[in-house]
Formats: sequence, C-alpha cells, structure tokens
Amino acid sequence: MFTPISTVTVFAPATVANVACGYDILGLAINAPGDEITVSLNRSGEITITEIRGDEGKLPLDPKVNSVTVAAQALWESCKEQYSDSWDNFGAEFIIDKKMPFGSGMGSSAASAVAGAYAANAILGSPLTKREVLPFAMLGEQAADGSYHADNVAPSLFGGISLVRSNQELDIIELPVPQDLWVTVVHPKIEILTKDARDILPKQVELGSASRQLGHLGGFIASLYTNDMALMQRSLQDEWIAPHRSQLIPAFSELQQAVMEQGALGFNISGAGPSVFALSQSQQQAQAIADSISSIWSDLNPSVYISTVNLDGAKVVKSEK
Amino acid sequence: MFTPISTVTVFAPATVANVACGYDILGLAINAPGDEITVSLNRSGEITITEIRGDEGKLPLDPKVNSVTVAAQALWESCKEQYSDSWDNFGAEFIIDKKMPFGSGMGSSAASAVAGAYAANAILGSPLTKREVLPFAMLGEQAADGSYHADNVAPSLFGGISLVRSNQELDIIELPVPQDLWVTVVHPKIEILTKDARDILPKQVELGSASRQLGHLGGFIASLYTNDMALMQRSLQDEWIAPHRSQLIPAFSELQQAVMEQGALGFNISGAGPSVFALSQSQQQAQAIADSISSIWSDLNPSVYISTVNLDGAKVVKSEK
Repeated sequence: MFTPISTVTVFAPATVANVACGYDILGLAINAPGDEITVSLNRSGEITITEIRGDEGKLPLDPKVNSVTVAAQALWESCKEQYSDSWDNFGAEFIIDKKMPFGSGMGSSAASAVAGAYAANAILGSPLTKREVLPFAMLGEQAADGSYHADNVAPSLFGGISLVRSNQELDIIELPVPQDLWVTVVHPKIEILTKDARDILPKQVELGSASRQLGHLGGFIASLYTNDMALMQRSLQDEWIAPHRSQLIPAFSELQQAVMEQGALGFNISGAGPSVFALSQSQQQAQAIADSISSIWSDLNPSVYISTVNLDGAKVVKSEK
Repeated sequence: MFTPISTVTVFAPATVANVACGYDILGLAINAPGDEITVSLNRSGEITITEIRGDEGKLPLDPKVNSVTVAAQALWESCKEQYSDSWDNFGAEFIIDKKMPFGSGMGSSAASAVAGAYAANAILGSPLTKREVLPFAMLGEQAADGSYHADNVAPSLFGGISLVRSNQELDIIELPVPQDLWVTVVHPKIEILTKDARDILPKQVELGSASRQLGHLGGFIASLYTNDMALMQRSLQDEWIAPHRSQLIPAFSELQQAVMEQGALGFNISGAGPSVFALSQSQQQAQAIADSISSIWSDLNPSVYISTVNLDGAKVVKSEK
C-alpha cells in the first residue's frame, strides 16, 4: 500500500430513466440509493481497485473493465498534460461501495461510471466541470452496458431532470424541476435480464403512435417550464414501452391502477425494470403510493425509495488531505 | 337577399405544420397569406354561401360540405339555447375570399375552417372564447381533410406556436414565441396530392429513430422556453418525414443545403408540401433565404411569404352594424 496523498469520497445517485414519456432520452435523479466511491491519490503509478462492497462478488476488480475505473482512467488520461511533471508516478486506489441493487432499472452502472469519473476529477482538485466530466462517465457506462446512452448518466452526474437531445452528440438539456415533485421508486426482488427487457420491445413503432408520443413528451417538457402539474399528469404516457415490457413486471396493471387511483402524476417502469416509479406532489402521497405497491408486491420483498428529485447529482461527501 | 343585421369580416392565417421536428403535433402561424371571410347576419333562417373568391371554382358552394360553413353551422347549433327567442329566423350569408393557395402545405383548409368558426362566433357577439371555438373549427377541418388533426387549426386560431399534446383530447399547449423568429415560406407552383404525400410515408419507424426524434422535439420545446436559438437549430431535425416526402419536392437537398449555409435555424417541408419553410433570426436572413429558394426554383414560379410568427391568429378585420 502506498501512502495516500489525499482521499476523497463521492456519491452518485440512482436515476429513473425514460420517465414514462421519454424512452432513452429522459432521466431524473433521486436522493437514494446510489454509489459511494472513495479514491486515494498515491505515488503507485497505477489505478487499482482495493475493494468492492455490496456487489455480492459480481463486479470485476480488474480496473481495465470495471466501469468506475474505466471512466476514471479515461478522465486521467485527458488531464495528463496539466500535471506533466508529477504525472508518471501518480496513482489511485478505489474503494467502491455499491449502495444500490444491480439490474434494478435504477441506473446502477451509470451511478458507478459517474462516481468513478467524478471521483477521478475530484482527487485532482476538480480541473474539469461536470459538463467536461460527462464524456468520461459515458465511457464507463458504455463499458458496463455496451451502449452509449446518457439517460441515466446525465441525471446522476448533474442531478435534476435531464433531456438527452442527442446521445450521439451528448447534447444534454437540464430541465427545470418543479417544487414539491416527489418520486417513489419500488424495487422488487426479481431479476430481469437487460437482454430480455430489450428483446421484448418492438423493433418499430407505428408512425401514428410515434407522433402521439411526441405530443406526450412535448407536453411533459412544457409542464416542467410552466409548473403545470395537470399537464404533467396528462403527458406522463407511454405508448411504446410499458405495453410490452410490463409483461416482465409482476402485477403491472394492478400496480398502475392502484397508484393512479391515489392521484399520482404518473406511473411506469423505471428504466428497463423491474423497479417501478411514480411521481406525485407530496411526501404523504409518495408514501401512500409506496405502501400500495409494497402491499401488492408483498411476496417480492420490495425495497422502497422516496425522495424529491435530487438536485445535486454527483457530489463530494468527504475529503481528507 | 335579406337585409343584413350586421356584418363582420375575419381573417385566419396560413400555418406551417410539423415544423421539422413535430410530425402532426406542432404548428405555427404566419402573417400572410390566409383566408378572409365576411359573414352577414340576417333573418333568412339559414346559412348560405353567397360567393367564393380565389378558389378557381374548386370549393363547394353547398354549405353542408364547405368546411367554412360546416364549422359555422356546428358552432351556431351549440349556441342556439342562448338565443332561443330570436334563433329560428337567424341566418347568415358567407363570402369566402381564399387569399391563399390550395394544396400548398400551408393549411388552407384549416384556415377556412378556423375563419368559418371564428366568423360565426364573431357575428353572434363572440359568446365563445377561442378555446371554445376550437372544436368547431376542427369539425370544419375534418370535413375538408377527413382527418382530425389540430396542427394547422390550432395555430391558425390562436396564433403563435402550438403543441398538440393530444389530437384526440384536443389538448393544445400554446408555446412561447422567441422575439425575432422569422419564417420564410416558399410555395412552388406544383401540385402534390395529399394522398401521395401520405402514401410515401413509412407506416412504421424504427424504435431508435422514434426515440431520437423525441430528443429533437424535446430540445425544440426547451429552446422556446429558454430562448436558446442554438439549441433550436440543433433540434429542428426530422428523421421520419423529409427523408421520404422530399422525393416529391423538386431539388429538396439543394434547397436545404443553400438555406442552411445561410445560417437558417432550420429548413423543411411545410405540412404535406410542396411548400418549404425556413426559420431564421432576422428579416434580412429570411429574405436572403427566400431569394436562394426562389433562385433554385426559378422554373416553378414560386410565391414567397416572409413574416415573424403571427401572434394574433384569427381576428376580426372589419365590423359593421
């Protein structure tokens, strides 16, 4: 072990992608769960992973394939010139604390990639802005997930509600977040393979349905800028994904009916599932919705997460010199 | 001829539907051309069309099928109760002045339907708000067009830029209009049958492309609320329609290249075509774009319309008692 020059602990939050009306281009951050990563700068000359907690042995310790260190390594490479004198013997040790479930539809790999890139930047004294950190987090997400999608990565990094105008161009718009917008996420203890969640989707959608979905997405974006919660409720619709993917989610229709009867603004699958989410306008409502879902899913040992939209995104939670 | 009790002349503007990124759910109004309709209230007990100007004999004089009077009649029916004493012998004569081309992609039938409904309301002393007039204008549009789409009707009635969250529910959102947003519309003297313009479209779109188009539409809506013209330029994209429908538009690629080289915010087909439109940020730019298009289309006797976005929509231009 090399003596650490400095140590930083960062947190990157879980996220809800798609948000009903924005398949692959919309995501929002919640306060918990998330990934906590501690990185220590040293003079070992290499990036290593010392420990991974809470992953049940599922994540690779090899820094060349772990999304945390893939993101961190790529960011460091780009910063080399600024630190040219001392760079050759700079190194870092990562401790990864997975404080959230895998394959839950809550952006676990994105949180890791974001935390990795953000920690790598923080330990250098934050030479890059969050916008500049984004492409490196994307590389980490790509390493884990195989695809290049920012709908989890962007909100985990920036916080709030992110619109991905273009994944290819990494054109991200941070949308306004209405006050008193509450998020309920419930994760049932079942596993859905991402491959199955993707294979169940149609390859194509009818042009008429495609157009109607534009209307819903447009309505949702407008509702955020105008704080029009009735419009938000009318807009949180999904013609493309839930009608198919809901087959993988136990009692989906029953959940939906129960949640909407409680006055939720919207209900749908979080990302690829199996977690589901609801938006509502008070903590009390968010809790009542969680209770309904937990009751219907009582056999599935559900975990419940209730929060407002997380406005911070990735952040330093501890720093030692 | 019955002696008129009062006479009102209204104008309803032409519109650009789709606006590149919002197929069937987005439209904006321009200042000219449009439809002008004069209605005189009398005691004939029936609604008639006295004269249609500028239609080259193409529009029906039968008030039961003309979209102007279909809309007007439906609105009157709904107002009957308020005027129960005098209603039975109320009648109206319409003079329709088509001040815009047919089948141009500029919302000719929508302008007629809007003008008809708006005039019918105005001559009664405007008992209904524009929102309340909308469904009657939709009936007129449906009579002419066979489909129930508000993407031309809404902006012609309200002015500005309209988002149709849902055609079925007639859920219309009036979007903010950035200052100094200029519209160039050029109409070539060719005819495209609406049927051909529809048949050339694919029945389905790839899910990935559908999702990317959500990103573009979302970016466009955000750009209006934030007055971010660079974002608007990145967002005015169309993966679904122009790649197919442009086959019906002479020299489309050449036009697009010329217009975008002049710094336009976007360029595309107006509605079903054959008119094309461009958005830009100054009158000078809008004119230069028009000149480029006219030059490339010099064989097609093009008509040019340049204006800011029309903020008034349908309006009374003359009123006599």
